[in-house]
Amino acid sequence: MNVISKETLARLPSYLRYLTELNKANVENVSSTLIAERFKLNSVSVRKDLAIFSVDGGKPKTGFCVKELIKEISEFLGFNNTKDAVLVGVGKLGSALLGYKGFDNYGLNIIASFDSKTDINLADPQGRVIFHTRRLPQMVKDLGVRIGIITVPAESAQSVCDIMVNSGIKAIWNFSPTNLIVPENIAVKNEDMAASLALLSQKLTDILNNE
Amino acid sequence: MNVISKETLARLPSYLRYLTELNKANVENVSSTLIAERFKLNSVSVRKDLAIFSVDGGKPKTGFCVKELIKEISEFLGFNNTKDAVLVGVGKLGSALLGYKGFDNYGLNIIASFDSKTDINLADPQGRVIFHTRRLPQMVKDLGVRIGIITVPAESAQSVCDIMVNSGIKAIWNFSPTNLIVPENIAVKNEDMAASLALLSQKLTDILNNE
Repeated sequence: MNVISKETLARLPSYLRYLTELNKANVENVSSTLIAERFKLNSVSVRKDLAIFSVDGGKPKTGFCVKELIKEISEFLGFNNTKDAVLVGVGKLGSALLGYKGFDNYGLNIIASFDSKTDINLADPQGRVIFHTRRLPQMVKDLGVRIGIITVPAESAQSVCDIMVNSGIKAIWNFSPTNLIVPENIAVKNEDMAASLALLSQKLTDILNNE
Repeated sequence: MNVISKETLARLPSYLRYLTELNKANVENVSSTLIAERFKLNSVSVRKDLAIFSVDGGKPKTGFCVKELIKEISEFLGFNNTKDAVLVGVGKLGSALLGYKGFDNYGLNIIASFDSKTDINLADPQGRVIFHTRRLPQMVKDLGVRIGIITVPAESAQSVCDIMVNSGIKAIWNFSPTNLIVPENIAVKNEDMAASLALLSQKLTDILNNE
């Protein structure tokens, strides 16, 4: 289970979403072919992905049990074990993330948010207090939080990252357009808009050239 | 140039950002080893990535010319040719994207924004009018826009996507947590928060297990 590829891991949440839709529509079984068609993937890849979660690899006639797959994939992704996180930078993007209801489904709970321009009168979209960033180290330690979300402007991102790492944060979800420098034992996932846009532009160019 | 890998393409914006920092600090030349160290990559991969943009593959002693690389990579990524886009869904996330100054650097110009709950009195963060979504098809055609950004809730995403595709949009940047169904000749880039979070959680688990 530990040698699961990055590509498979990235596909699982999509499968999970699709399976949840099927389950809502009272569909009991699903074939890897159907899932492959839905996501324009090779059905062999899908079967391999799903085999990890199903002892018998799906029954030849009926396919995979939808409910069972949902249970197995959610458990694997850890979406059933809620993980606490702190967020620093309550601007537009930070507020959008704080107000995003979907995180509950993924087992992420933003337990506290911080900003350098704030006082006790400010509140996040859920009406919870936004703390001053100077309180971050103590609160991360007290709460035992391991995940930090960075939504500050690029020029402050590295200093916020350093504070997080020194406070005991082990995994950083970075939404700032900057390349953070972190020690070896810290996980970073960058939401790199420029990289996304480059990939999209490239696809668009290919499409327009083929027309 | 057309067979550049997805992995290389995804790394280029980071290189570009780093090179821009170096240029600001008046650094004239850079080695692939230095860039590799900065991003914890294999220096052979970096050299291969950069070789695409440099006729002589970098000089053995002095390395790559920073200014030249910036010019070549920006041109390749199309960040010098501004591309127009429309955005649908001016909620928190939509507003955050509309207010994001970084897109200029990536050659993306959000030319008009739309929402289904709006009238002429509403304005985006730059004070520009937000149009009702029913005006999207005509405006996309009139403006000749090819890129659509979706920031509506999951339940409306597919219908907005269909309207975009029928209006002539060829590339969709999807921020809704849903799996869009599109015809073959349409490019989609999903910003899948669940997938990102799954990757980050996995890394965190590995780190905590190794401690």
